[in-house]
Amino acid sequence: MSETVSPLAPKSYAEMPVIRGVSMSTAAAGIKYKNRTDVLLMSFERPATVAGVFTKSKCPSAPVDFCRSNLGHGVARGVVVNSGNANAFTGVKGRTATELTAKSAAAALGCAENEIYLASTGVIGEPLDATKFAGVLGDMAKGATGDFWLEAAKAIMTTDTYPKVATRSAEIGGVKVTINGIAKGAGMIAPDMATMLSFVVTDADIAAPALQALLSAGVEPTFNSVTVDSDTSTSDTLLLFATGAAAADGQKKVESAEDPALSGFTSALNDLLKDLALQVVRDGEGARKMVEVTVVGAESDQAAKKIALSIANSPLVKTAVAGEDANWGRIVMAVGKSGEMADRDRLAIWFGDIRVAVNGERDPAYSEAATTAVMKEQDIPVKVDIGLGDGRATVWTCDLTKEYVAINGDYRS
Amino acid sequence: MSETVSPLAPKSYAEMPVIRGVSMSTAAAGIKYKNRTDVLLMSFERPATVAGVFTKSKCPSAPVDFCRSNLGHGVARGVVVNSGNANAFTGVKGRTATELTAKSAAAALGCAENEIYLASTGVIGEPLDATKFAGVLGDMAKGATGDFWLEAAKAIMTTDTYPKVATRSAEIGGVKVTINGIAKGAGMIAPDMATMLSFVVTDADIAAPALQALLSAGVEPTFNSVTVDSDTSTSDTLLLFATGAAAADGQKKVESAEDPALSGFTSALNDLLKDLALQVVRDGEGARKMVEVTVVGAESDQAAKKIALSIANSPLVKTAVAGEDANWGRIVMAVGKSGEMADRDRLAIWFGDIRVAVNGERDPAYSEAATTAVMKEQDIPVKVDIGLGDGRATVWTCDLTKEYVAINGDYRS
Repeated sequence: MSETVSPLAPKSYAEMPVIRGVSMSTAAAGIKYKNRTDVLLMSFERPATVAGVFTKSKCPSAPVDFCRSNLGHGVARGVVVNSGNANAFTGVKGRTATELTAKSAAAALGCAENEIYLASTGVIGEPLDATKFAGVLGDMAKGATGDFWLEAAKAIMTTDTYPKVATRSAEIGGVKVTINGIAKGAGMIAPDMATMLSFVVTDADIAAPALQALLSAGVEPTFNSVTVDSDTSTSDTLLLFATGAAAADGQKKVESAEDPALSGFTSALNDLLKDLALQVVRDGEGARKMVEVTVVGAESDQAAKKIALSIANSPLVKTAVAGEDANWGRIVMAVGKSGEMADRDRLAIWFGDIRVAVNGERDPAYSEAATTAVMKEQDIPVKVDIGLGDGRATVWTCDLTKEYVAINGDYRS
Repeated sequence: MSETVSPLAPKSYAEMPVIRGVSMSTAAAGIKYKNRTDVLLMSFERPATVAGVFTKSKCPSAPVDFCRSNLGHGVARGVVVNSGNANAFTGVKGRTATELTAKSAAAALGCAENEIYLASTGVIGEPLDATKFAGVLGDMAKGATGDFWLEAAKAIMTTDTYPKVATRSAEIGGVKVTINGIAKGAGMIAPDMATMLSFVVTDADIAAPALQALLSAGVEPTFNSVTVDSDTSTSDTLLLFATGAAAADGQKKVESAEDPALSGFTSALNDLLKDLALQVVRDGEGARKMVEVTVVGAESDQAAKKIALSIANSPLVKTAVAGEDANWGRIVMAVGKSGEMADRDRLAIWFGDIRVAVNGERDPAYSEAATTAVMKEQDIPVKVDIGLGDGRATVWTCDLTKEYVAINGDYRS
């Protein structure tokens, strides 16, 4: 938790409604931090269906392994999240810690251990002392409440400068349902703090396979389209739970993601995922500006995304944005290095509405002064037309500042 | 050219011997800089054989296109290099500029235009005024001299803080031959200055196809194993010329790269390429430390190189090195994100001689104080054993400092 809040932070936090069927509680277990909460317990009154998406890292954390193996079961009763220690690269001790935590949580909630989900964020390589949870989870289960979303978001922060919350509502077959979510950043992987974590809960009644299909599709244009520093955490975890409480209002359980009744819910979910993902970027370490990179005219959507990420991850593009420099030569460079088909002489590039390059050279009509004005804004839209096909993609990133280097060069010591 | 020389600069420049058959001259054509040389003409007394390796960018500069198309001819009489303007992303004007420059150079040297090689480094997207060369190349050709390597290296600098020169000698069939080379950095692509350029000349008598085979093989473990910021220039150019002057001493012309007579020459060439490549890294923008990343035990050499580059390009690893922080958790992260096979529980990691992690967790014997001492050095060796196979690779990079952000955020404006 930083002293200085990101200048890109939202002006106010969303009012988070209660979601029937889920309650939360936080505690200060002293994992690493002093004088702040560092454990979140989320508990479901009745078994909730669950879907998950995890880091693609070949060296995932112990909690990621644990969640993946429980996901086949498809039912959740509780979630335990801690900040301060990622329980990653902790060998056999890591697995022992997840088992002990799950055991304590299952005892506190009166459920099976494979109905518990775990996520940890913090230092990599330090053994996590799971006995610290044993002492607090019982009391946390007793004191849990539904109106606690902002506090929940605060307990999972590491180098985040603000808590990230979002809410949406939709109708399924005429019955109103709500979706709430929280997330944390603050780098794609923060210092040697690891991780992007996000937990989303709805009161809709949706079967686990349908929930998983919705989440897997929804994550691509949202959480999988943001990058702070191109580094992938060992611990990235996004979980979506459906408590099914809306069944009491007459919502008919949805079994398939293809069910037309889900259309409103699907847009609301995707919108919420995008909201949370952009909040993560806007709190990227040292971020002073947000950059939205749109690539059109690529050979395919996949090619467009690869080019867009090549631009968004380029240190030279990101430092140029930090310097408010409309340096489109670096955009050309990043397109060229992406490995995807591009024809130099068909490229066109825009900053905001201003086309700076066209047909493989500087736009004759381009005004440096107008472009500089765009670069002085907090949100910088960059568009590239490859001129070859119909593929398109949008990704979001932040600038690369001296503060990023300071945060990440000074952290562990 | 920066005011402050990199702390990693060599203590002294190599004494560069004359190479028979090549002479050089420099001039201040005022392409962009004031009060410094910015054009180099290298001329070969008799047609030299030539080999080249270029950027893999899909948006290469006009000079790269020009060199590539001449390379089939295999004979060189002259090289024109300018700093200050990359002649990249300049559309039709770019091609016109290369044609005009080649024409002026061919007239000055009395040769064909397809015997001229060109390289440009500097701003991307600005049309290059090639008429500036027409006025100086004739005089440059007349004033060229063989003892001019350091001056040649200076004329091609952009954000480099020191000129990069190297020399080696070897014997081919008992006849002594010499190899000289110059290079420039200073980022993998410098600011919106583009490019790594290097020109190497030997008096050995070697046929063009053999020369190309030697260069293509030699570049992999040297120039293709260094990275400053993961950004690939539109203009990277490495040219190797053989004047054949050693034939006068009785050196029998070598037709094949497989010829055993070349063994000494091949090692000397590879050694020189590595020397120049490391000089480029040691002058990486804002660099304060050099990092040598060795990966062993990977599934293949190719996998090892991909993992090593994932580590060397990670902003979080590079900022940790800048902060003298032995943050091996970030090494685990970078191994995990490389996409190559890795087994968390078999990984071992060393900083210098100190093993910090083994069997998927912190080494119990690891001393933070001893590791911190390693991190305070200028040159930091990092080794990772993947524990799966025999694949190995070494790559070199520098740290990521606030100065990198300052150089690249403040450059164009």
